[in-house]
Amino acid sequence: MIQAISQGCSDRRLYIIYLIETYHYTRHNAKNQALVAVRFEGESNPYFQFCLHHAADEAGHELMALHDLKKLGIDPQAVITSEPLAATEVLIAYLYWISVQGNPYQRLGYSFWAENCYQSIDAVLKAIQKQMTLTLKEMTFFTEHATLDKKHAEMVHQMISKIATTEQTWNDIERVMQRSLMLTGKILDDVYEEYQKLVTRGSSRYSFLE
Amino acid sequence: MIQAISQGCSDRRLYIIYLIETYHYTRHNAKNQALVAVRFEGESNPYFQFCLHHAADEAGHELMALHDLKKLGIDPQAVITSEPLAATEVLIAYLYWISVQGNPYQRLGYSFWAENCYQSIDAVLKAIQKQMTLTLKEMTFFTEHATLDKKHAEMVHQMISKIATTEQTWNDIERVMQRSLMLTGKILDDVYEEYQKLVTRGSSRYSFLE
Amino acid sequence: MIQAISQGCSDRRLYIIYLIETYHYTRHNAKNQALVAVRFEGESNPYFQFCLHHAADEAGHELMALHDLKKLGIDPQAVITSEPLAATEVLIAYLYWISVQGNPYQRLGYSFWAENCYQSIDAVLKAIQKQMTLTLKEMTFFTEHATLDKKHAEMVHQMISKIATTEQTWNDIERVMQRSLMLTGKILDDVYEEYQKLVTRGSSRYSFLE
Amino acid sequence: MIQAISQGCSDRRLYIIYLIETYHYTRHNAKNQALVAVRFEGESNPYFQFCLHHAADEAGHELMALHDLKKLGIDPQAVITSEPLAATEVLIAYLYWISVQGNPYQRLGYSFWAENCYQSIDAVLKAIQKQMTLTLKEMTFFTEHATLDKKHAEMVHQMISKIATTEQTWNDIERVMQRSLMLTGKILDDVYEEYQKLVTRGSSRYSFLE
Repeated sequence: MIQAISQGCSDRRLYIIYLIETYHYTRHNAKNQALVAVRFEGESNPYFQFCLHHAADEAGHELMALHDLKKLGIDPQAVITSEPLAATEVLIAYLYWISVQGNPYQRLGYSFWAENCYQSIDAVLKAIQKQMTLTLKEMTFFTEHATLDKKHAEMVHQMISKIATTEQTWNDIERVMQRSLMLTGKILDDVYEEYQKLVTRGSSRYSFLE
Repeated sequence: MIQAISQGCSDRRLYIIYLIETYHYTRHNAKNQALVAVRFEGESNPYFQFCLHHAADEAGHELMALHDLKKLGIDPQAVITSEPLAATEVLIAYLYWISVQGNPYQRLGYSFWAENCYQSIDAVLKAIQKQMTLTLKEMTFFTEHATLDKKHAEMVHQMISKIATTEQTWNDIERVMQRSLMLTGKILDDVYEEYQKLVTRGSSRYSFLE
Repeated sequence: MIQAISQGCSDRRLYIIYLIETYHYTRHNAKNQALVAVRFEGESNPYFQFCLHHAADEAGHELMALHDLKKLGIDPQAVITSEPLAATEVLIAYLYWISVQGNPYQRLGYSFWAENCYQSIDAVLKAIQKQMTLTLKEMTFFTEHATLDKKHAEMVHQMISKIATTEQTWNDIERVMQRSLMLTGKILDDVYEEYQKLVTRGSSRYSFLE
Repeated sequence: MIQAISQGCSDRRLYIIYLIETYHYTRHNAKNQALVAVRFEGESNPYFQFCLHHAADEAGHELMALHDLKKLGIDPQAVITSEPLAATEVLIAYLYWISVQGNPYQRLGYSFWAENCYQSIDAVLKAIQKQMTLTLKEMTFFTEHATLDKKHAEMVHQMISKIATTEQTWNDIERVMQRSLMLTGKILDDVYEEYQKLVTRGSSRYSFLE
């Protein structure tokens, strides 16, 4: 997908399909973040409180993706009732899994890159905006997050440096970082594949895009 | 217990035993509140966000009870490793139960009275303070909550009037209100019974109180 | 309730109200038993397998209570849609609670008496049968369980003697035994209270009993 | 991996690495199967009972993989403490996910192929056995399952034909079948990749294989 954009793809449908999948997994982020706190058996500590505050901050963020889709002319109800692609469902499943078992600190590995990525993808977002002639109102999910997540990213850094006192914890955080990043990359692949299907043979899945 | 205080009981140990149980169930309030949001399958709505924000607000409140106990000369570690009394464990169990199944709005029935009760118990708290000659620093759990919960109580009221649009939901909220109130009352009975055991025959459970 | 029966109460409605509550909590026994296995993080061991086999054995037992109620002329649908009394809901909540946290062996404290009680209550059941002139077909829940549970009781005994190797585990099992027994006793009280309400003033709750 | 075997690979280490991953995901099958029953809110029905019985049947099956590994000279403790590969962890996460939410019948899509696959892979297993000169005692996981699962496969078929009465349920079962099969295929790829790493550059992960 990144490649297609860097080669000049100007078809908004690629962006739309990506936003739909973003909507799907973003819906679960507050919930799996809260679950980390819920399973905490020990005393209230700064990490416990961080998880609940972070969950509260994330609540409703998927509505930004829905808003952007609406601005782009997509019926929100069609998005809500659509099923996530395989890669998206797999990321969702993985994020619940690492939230409910294993090292309670490991989910920070996901936050680490997820709250930090907006700088790295800035060039891609700018290319998307220009090539697909999108207004900022059609990209609030990404533009708002770039701002919101600056604060979050800092908190995540501070929390990691506070709690990662053993090699095991570092390894667990690093593993979740790598695997959640890999699974997110797979979403981009699936999105591009779906887009190509749509372009070459049409797609019953995206009939609402026509 | 209320009766004993209104009859002039001036033994701090009664207050201490009650604070210990308060510590135990308060530890779970942020977690069972967050669980209501986690099980929400539908779209982010104001109630979903309320649950997560409320959970974040409640996180760590048990530390106030622990602080007061410390000021009263009780070893926090003895409190942390103590086991809740039967009535306290039953209230904890019930609050998880009504949070993870049934009408997701029903937990508001607990918040309704729990965030509102500080006015009603003001006279009792004043009597406790006077009779047991406690300083405000030994009662932060109750004095802080009286302030904090004013805002919460208002939010709970607003939320109930917003979401309780069917008779079924009213009934579910009312049932949880009555049952959680009854189970909390049972804690007061158990606390007083334990206190009497301690006074009349000593108690291995409260050896750290001597 | 036991007292009323020993004093010769011959009103089937008392038995019926009790069977309805039995239906309600029995519905959850297979599920909370299975949860003990689900939370097991370690290696498969005999206790893990015991929990799953026991859960499979318990599945559907509430249908016996429903069958008996039907034989007694009660509409099963009215039972299914009825709400458990407070004491019954509290027992259900407690059994989930002790199944999902704490010492994984502690639920054996509930099985210990629940699978063993049929001998102890044999006299009461005989009195119920005689005084209320019930046929065995209207008492299958209790007569079948008396047989089924002989085998279970033995397995529970064996399991306890195998796993209860520390004092902590003995204490945890004992605590759950005492508390679950106390909460079940409370159901008998609530049932009798409801029966008395029905007799003295009628009851909208049990309109289907008239 | 399949390709490597069909091209005559006779290195037991490929089989061993595969068995280790099999051990890892098999450990969770009884638990995620039981969870389907636990979340059932309705009346006990044949599917509810099927889930619990099937879970009981699956309990401890990973011990067969561990047994085979032991026969092959691998220290069971090294296997138990090893971490699953990314693809294996992702399958585990996915199976919990489809067990705890969505259509409760959808997990049958996994059982459908998982209990049926032993015929299809018979040729591969025979090739492995011959090329790697394995005894049947080193392959009990697969040989036993081929027998055990014949009965299970039939029960799964019957259950699907009984419960799949709507198109939605068919679609949900089919989706889980496809996605769980895809994720399992990914394990074979990861296993082969790990094997190649080991052969070409050695591997700290598999130091216990040397």
